[in-house]
Amino acid sequence: MQDRLSQTFSALADPTRRAMLARLSLGEANVSDLAEPFLDEMSLPAVTKHLQVLEKAGLITKTRKAQWRSCKINGDGLKDAADWMEQYRVFWEESFDRLDAYLKTVTGKKGDDNV
Amino acid sequence: MQDRLSQTFSALADPTRRAMLARLSLGEANVSDLAEPFLDEMSLPAVTKHLQVLEKAGLITKTRKAQWRSCKINGDGLKDAADWMEQYRVFWEESFDRLDAYLKTVTGKKGDDNV
Repeated sequence: MQDRLSQTFSALADPTRRAMLARLSLGEANVSDLAEPFLDEMSLPAVTKHLQVLEKAGLITKTRKAQWRSCKINGDGLKDAADWMEQYRVFWEESFDRLDAYLKTVTGKKGDDNV
Repeated sequence: MQDRLSQTFSALADPTRRAMLARLSLGEANVSDLAEPFLDEMSLPAVTKHLQVLEKAGLITKTRKAQWRSCKINGDGLKDAADWMEQYRVFWEESFDRLDAYLKTVTGKKGDDNV
């Protein structure tokens, strides 16, 4: 069985599932509205499967509202993955500092005439 | 073929590969030193395969130093995934605000006697 963090990253490793999260970042949506834009390229069971992966990974929650099943983003599920990423921030900021230093040298050489 | 972001998240979806990144966050390491702690539970080819996944996903880079092959973290590879996560920050901060509000209510009810 996958550990929680692996399950989260695994769920995020798919462009359809990330597109679903992007849609849900605009607000709650019921399953059929959420599925609709994806039905040109895949079947409803395939869409449902993607939603199940997101739900099992704790990235979305489903609630029943009258006859609708509504989906929304579960922030806590994303937080653990974001916290994990955060501890590596120094590595990309370091790269950017180097890039910045390099760009300053280049700009300096060209006499700041290429703004 | 997987898109870049999917490849990154997929590479992160494994505890061994995350442990390798954690080791590399302490500094560059040659392949044999990096492999050593994992050889109790898996073969050297399995370790090498994990390193290849990290390298293909752009999360580490390998360089040759004299007769050693040295690995280090590639910050830029992590940055894209971190940027993607960042756009969802509001969702977990929102959850924590709600938790905070709830905790204040609970503390208030108990007359602040349980610090």
